[in-house]
Amino acid sequence: MFKLLKTDDKTKARRGQLTTAHGVIQTPIFMPVGTQGTVKTLHPDDLVDLGSQIILGNTYHLNLRPGLDVIRAAQGLHKFSSWDMPILTDSGGFQVWSLAKLRKISEEGVAFANHLDGSKMMLSPESSMEIQATLGSDIAMLFDECPPYPCDEKYAADSLALTTRWAKRCKQWHEENRSSIVPWQLDNSLIANPTEVSRQLAFGIVQGSTYADLREQSAKELIEIGFDGYAVGGISVGEPEYEMIRAIDNAVPHLPQDKPRYAMGLGTPPQMLEMIARGVDMFDCVMPTRVARHGLAFTHDGPIHIKNKEFELDQRPLTETTHPSVARFSRSYIRHLWRAKEMLALRLLSFHNLHFYLQLMEQAREAIDNGNFTEFKDAFIARYTANSK
Amino acid sequence: MFKLLKTDDKTKARRGQLTTAHGVIQTPIFMPVGTQGTVKTLHPDDLVDLGSQIILGNTYHLNLRPGLDVIRAAQGLHKFSSWDMPILTDSGGFQVWSLAKLRKISEEGVAFANHLDGSKMMLSPESSMEIQATLGSDIAMLFDECPPYPCDEKYAADSLALTTRWAKRCKQWHEENRSSIVPWQLDNSLIANPTEVSRQLAFGIVQGSTYADLREQSAKELIEIGFDGYAVGGISVGEPEYEMIRAIDNAVPHLPQDKPRYAMGLGTPPQMLEMIARGVDMFDCVMPTRVARHGLAFTHDGPIHIKNKEFELDQRPLTETTHPSVARFSRSYIRHLWRAKEMLALRLLSFHNLHFYLQLMEQAREAIDNGNFTEFKDAFIARYTANSK
Repeated sequence: MFKLLKTDDKTKARRGQLTTAHGVIQTPIFMPVGTQGTVKTLHPDDLVDLGSQIILGNTYHLNLRPGLDVIRAAQGLHKFSSWDMPILTDSGGFQVWSLAKLRKISEEGVAFANHLDGSKMMLSPESSMEIQATLGSDIAMLFDECPPYPCDEKYAADSLALTTRWAKRCKQWHEENRSSIVPWQLDNSLIANPTEVSRQLAFGIVQGSTYADLREQSAKELIEIGFDGYAVGGISVGEPEYEMIRAIDNAVPHLPQDKPRYAMGLGTPPQMLEMIARGVDMFDCVMPTRVARHGLAFTHDGPIHIKNKEFELDQRPLTETTHPSVARFSRSYIRHLWRAKEMLALRLLSFHNLHFYLQLMEQAREAIDNGNFTEFKDAFIARYTANSK
Repeated sequence: MFKLLKTDDKTKARRGQLTTAHGVIQTPIFMPVGTQGTVKTLHPDDLVDLGSQIILGNTYHLNLRPGLDVIRAAQGLHKFSSWDMPILTDSGGFQVWSLAKLRKISEEGVAFANHLDGSKMMLSPESSMEIQATLGSDIAMLFDECPPYPCDEKYAADSLALTTRWAKRCKQWHEENRSSIVPWQLDNSLIANPTEVSRQLAFGIVQGSTYADLREQSAKELIEIGFDGYAVGGISVGEPEYEMIRAIDNAVPHLPQDKPRYAMGLGTPPQMLEMIARGVDMFDCVMPTRVARHGLAFTHDGPIHIKNKEFELDQRPLTETTHPSVARFSRSYIRHLWRAKEMLALRLLSFHNLHFYLQLMEQAREAIDNGNFTEFKDAFIARYTANSK
């Protein structure tokens, strides 16, 4: 259930709130990624300290390991991972394309050999929705085909047609089965702080590659089927940044004002601000935690590599506005932890980078509320890119 | 400054409190090991949550990396690692024996090639004390020679004589220089919560290998030099458990009642209780955090390996009395994190194991206060060993 609160006068940037079974989310929002049922290196208490409103879980990974028997025994992913707030699960479609081997696509779904032990598996619209219902996420994504980049128009059109047929099957399975198969999907007594929404939401995914008419067609077909929100997919697959922005420009104008819009798998801080300016409400990305594990910290002057010699005696915190839990440590100390291969380095950098992303979203929301989003965006990007190393 | 509060009637177990510049410590006590200026996987806030009263830092490691220039720029190890409570530093002697290569011992000290890049270095009584003063620890250990096990009587006697001569040089350097070289060693304005003790304490280390008369001689010689506390060294070097206990039995009776006694590098939960029963006040050990990184969790029924299949669907916490921050997770979930190679597994197991050790010390203190330490010890060991796997 999405409520549009305010639209910025000069851009299409907007403030909204999305109500899910496990809580109300303020948008624009960034969702930390908990691929395997945990946001890497962090405790759920850390995510609460960070003000994280929702996290993302990966259907492909969780279905492989620990597997649904383990999730069922725990009564869903929330209880399994001790996270009481909203969870969005992806459909597994993207990972099948990026990780699995020997993929074979048919009308039925995708047969593949998984990346862990090569076992043959199948994901279909129905099985993806069933797994997501078993996980008990607050928001399920439909099972789509994610075309590669570049992609010729014929392939993109055929792929889009298949995604639309799969979207119908997802919707049908979801309507008919989600409440009967797993009690924790509907039973409010199992939720610590239930809201008026006592069902799993389902989001459609707009495909169509780089073709404006296909993006428009995809959006219209999905809207006709009817979803609780709409994502833009098929981006962050190796395309240049201008194509990423164009995909948003080609899709968002055809999406309804009264539903949330989600750009999947993005992005850098400037990219997210550019997309907010185009009316995007939701983001997810592994980047803040992944680059942390490579020693990179986000700052308002662009990212820095903590391993660099220049930080050897630097007594300043990573940034002036980082969370107190990280601000108490100097760059000098974190560099030492990094060089000494101490896990606390990865934990502090992950925490800091997520704080940077979540703080950016908070500032974006405030700027929209205050009617100065354009000024905020331009100033942030100017400083971020001017000094970027 | 040590104050003996109570002695158990049936054993030599005792309650005391040790005042250092950064705070008052209740004994018996366990000190988590922060080899490289961090207790592996944990944030200082975690250590406060765990009720850790003091941590240990390693002179050998910190002198190599980050090096004293970095520590000086931060004004000592407390500020560098953002830890406001007491720190004990070892002398580096043990690591020279266990890690360094091409060791050459002389009256002056030990020349060696370090384990990181093979550079030639030297540690002497004076340099060890100077490093420890620069680190600014609350308790410094004298620089000793740690003889191997087994060790013939001639070697043990010669080594002991050298350790005594080094102890005198340590004491002399410490008296003459500790306050003049590094301001953060004496300046109470640099300490968040200073106590009446505004100097670095220094502990002697009793050596003598497995020979009762040498242990007695070592204790008497060190007492004559005069230290703020006395450790039993040369244990946990590969000897069988009965030799470890015998070393304590040979040393402790010769140590003064009004100074703290520290058994270095120990031990398992039953071993620590046996040593508390013999009048030992302080312990340190890498075991709780090291075995955590191998998937082992301490329980009252002995250690368990979280990777075992039997925990796949086990919805119970690691133990009934673990910290709430860990108790919220099932064994099933932690096993999943372990199998998925998620760092949170190492963090939760490290946190839990330290909680187990620190809780054991708290229970030992309570039992001594209540006059039922023997019953507590016997019941704990009976359950721990009966079901040990």
